[in-house]
Amino acid sequence: MRNGLEKFFNPASVAIVGATPVEGKLGRIVLENFIKRFCGRVYPVNPRYDEIFGLKCYKSVSELPETPDLVVVIVPAPSVPSIVREAAVKGVPAVIVISGGFAETGTFEGEKLEKELKEISKAYGIRIMGPNGLGVFDNYSGVDTFFVPEERLKRPPRGHIALVSQSGAFTCMLMDWMAYHGIGLAKAISYGNKVDVDDVDVLEYLAEDENTKVILMYIEDLKPGRGRLFIDIAKKVVKKKPIVVYKAGKTKRGGVAALSHTAAMTGEYTVYKAAFKQAGIIEAETFDEMMDFVRILLHQPLMRGNNVFIITTSGGVGVMLTDALIDAGFEVPRTPNDVREALRKVFPPHWIVENPIDLTGDAVDEDYIHVLDLLIDKPYVNAIVVVVGPYLPRFKGIVVDYLAKIRTEYRKPIVAITIGGERIMKIAEKFEENGITVFESPERLARALKALYTYSMIKPRGE
Amino acid sequence: MRNGLEKFFNPASVAIVGATPVEGKLGRIVLENFIKRFCGRVYPVNPRYDEIFGLKCYKSVSELPETPDLVVVIVPAPSVPSIVREAAVKGVPAVIVISGGFAETGTFEGEKLEKELKEISKAYGIRIMGPNGLGVFDNYSGVDTFFVPEERLKRPPRGHIALVSQSGAFTCMLMDWMAYHGIGLAKAISYGNKVDVDDVDVLEYLAEDENTKVILMYIEDLKPGRGRLFIDIAKKVVKKKPIVVYKAGKTKRGGVAALSHTAAMTGEYTVYKAAFKQAGIIEAETFDEMMDFVRILLHQPLMRGNNVFIITTSGGVGVMLTDALIDAGFEVPRTPNDVREALRKVFPPHWIVENPIDLTGDAVDEDYIHVLDLLIDKPYVNAIVVVVGPYLPRFKGIVVDYLAKIRTEYRKPIVAITIGGERIMKIAEKFEENGITVFESPERLARALKALYTYSMIKPRGE
Repeated sequence: MRNGLEKFFNPASVAIVGATPVEGKLGRIVLENFIKRFCGRVYPVNPRYDEIFGLKCYKSVSELPETPDLVVVIVPAPSVPSIVREAAVKGVPAVIVISGGFAETGTFEGEKLEKELKEISKAYGIRIMGPNGLGVFDNYSGVDTFFVPEERLKRPPRGHIALVSQSGAFTCMLMDWMAYHGIGLAKAISYGNKVDVDDVDVLEYLAEDENTKVILMYIEDLKPGRGRLFIDIAKKVVKKKPIVVYKAGKTKRGGVAALSHTAAMTGEYTVYKAAFKQAGIIEAETFDEMMDFVRILLHQPLMRGNNVFIITTSGGVGVMLTDALIDAGFEVPRTPNDVREALRKVFPPHWIVENPIDLTGDAVDEDYIHVLDLLIDKPYVNAIVVVVGPYLPRFKGIVVDYLAKIRTEYRKPIVAITIGGERIMKIAEKFEENGITVFESPERLARALKALYTYSMIKPRGE
Repeated sequence: MRNGLEKFFNPASVAIVGATPVEGKLGRIVLENFIKRFCGRVYPVNPRYDEIFGLKCYKSVSELPETPDLVVVIVPAPSVPSIVREAAVKGVPAVIVISGGFAETGTFEGEKLEKELKEISKAYGIRIMGPNGLGVFDNYSGVDTFFVPEERLKRPPRGHIALVSQSGAFTCMLMDWMAYHGIGLAKAISYGNKVDVDDVDVLEYLAEDENTKVILMYIEDLKPGRGRLFIDIAKKVVKKKPIVVYKAGKTKRGGVAALSHTAAMTGEYTVYKAAFKQAGIIEAETFDEMMDFVRILLHQPLMRGNNVFIITTSGGVGVMLTDALIDAGFEVPRTPNDVREALRKVFPPHWIVENPIDLTGDAVDEDYIHVLDLLIDKPYVNAIVVVVGPYLPRFKGIVVDYLAKIRTEYRKPIVAITIGGERIMKIAEKFEENGITVFESPERLARALKALYTYSMIKPRGE
């Protein structure tokens, strides 16, 4: 089915080899994850127990009453190959090896064990994810081999981001961060040493995954010989959904650090950079850009031209935004005469009707609506930025309903700058709930809008 | 006293012309501000009232029982010059004109009124701040002419940042934001149209202000003919305390927006940029950098070399940090042999003792302390970055006490990356309380550390 990864994410049954009731052990945490949220059948495997948490426990994979769709292996490295072979012989299609102690140790023994896994995968066609990764977290099926318990790694709400990462710890940080900020996740994949399943396979799978609308990848390196294929597949995937990649190991010294970290051969960053661009992959160059880009790509319609109009109540932020947008390659056109005249007729003389249109501190919701109403249907308006400050005396935030309406009707990106404390945070939340992506930083907004614009040029119309 | 601005910030008595009990009027908000927090004498001035909020109200400035140190004017523009002249004649040293309706309107009438103010200031030597600004917020003396009430503009706690801004609305946003994030403010100055008091005066004053430890400026332009002086004074100021400047109106199009906003002639950005550098001013190129730079400059000791060591529990973040630090011009040196051997002796084989030193997900507080203890006194260690993730099972955050201790003892910058949800936010807060500046983004940390390093090269030793 698909490229053979389906069983990693939607297995009907899962065996957990190394399951244990012992407090603090990884095998217990993973078993508990599955008991808590997984809807399929769960089989603990451990020769030491007859039963764990009320589930019958099996001595080995061969003894299982059925061939499970997925086997999760959490035992010391030296025992892993024989278990995986056993699973392969039984006809198991997918195995996740959580255990560390393989090539990442840099030892002869570790490399030998990893080579064995590779051979088993080739010989039997069994797909292996890992070793030395967190495996799979699927927010829809309940597959969760992430061995960090909820109290140290909050699972984000269901959503449409797929996170693929060469760093397990960074994956945890990001997930915990997303949960805190209420950002939804479809699935997370931590493939560890990539003995078999790698970025190429995962990308191919996610292209078809209905719950995934944006793919976010943290990559240190691609497997040798897989670069060309990665780019070819990415080219196809981006026609369907955006891929945002953060490439770590950009500098020579960072490459050395990556070699220590995951034995990654990071290679020339410029080569990666050019390849990403060629493939239509959006590169996030900073930590902040990762989530900024994903958020805007997830929630804004495509941007069909590079003209941006700004409706502000802070002249200063208007100037900052103009600089940042121009710097990102956008146009901030002068307000056309007809709109200018229409605004001049109704607005007080000290309001600025030139783009950035500045309603000053006296603005109420209806003033924003008045401007939006004049701008939204004009063909020369490709995106609108709304700036809201905490100081507005009679601003209630009800403009958000209007924004939500015209956003759906006209399918143009509408984003906002919201800087302030609690009051403005609540307005920002309301904006986000209604599909208006908010930022505090004008520069970050401009860079994110640029990512959206870049992707809009790649994506075929009408999708 | 000093350069004549002292009375703007520490007046013994203040007259508020245009004070009123009418709900929602600016004259009421400002009067209430002073009643609430100002310790000196307050005189409402308004011919329509005999008393406001229990205070005797005066018909005019000339009728006041004493010559106030500061007069705040909040009346329609056409009446402003005669009131300011009256104050000047009475010998008032300082006037803040809140009212708008001057040169910023671009009208002949507005410009004429502003010219009048200029002439009065010259003729009588009275210092005028404004018009068309928020004036002064002093968190120590209680001077607060900011006409936005607390519910729409939370005042930050007392602190050591002075904020100088050409945009009133942006000042409000930033203050409300700071209050929310618990970042302390010494004073904020919104000088409006700069008819008299400008950046040069304010900078000169803040250099001597004991409550100000870092100066943050938002500038669209400098007054014509004042550029040279600004740079000369900045050169002296930075020997005492850092100046961080955000220059708005960088692009030609942004310059046009600034012209609409404050009638600013933003000029060539490259000229400003070069001048800032020459003066030892730290330029914040983005919104995020403003507060990142201020925070690190405020809380970290100077950095006396460019070698950075990283103690991480996420290899991925270690790689990201290495890239970002190298990109910012730092060295991330290999761990010297003696330290490497000492670490190898006590740490498990899968921990990485090479810089970035990676304690993996198994680290406890004592492991961090062990590494810190080996590094902190070494002359080749100029700054340390600590990375903390939410996933650490037995990490309690008690390393923070040790960090606080060595930070004071060795006077080296120690900063941290903390990415995660609630649990990690609490640790981050504890870090901040103990002088460890935290960041989520490796790139932003590197840029902020670079600002600190740049400033350290400027600032004389022993201060």
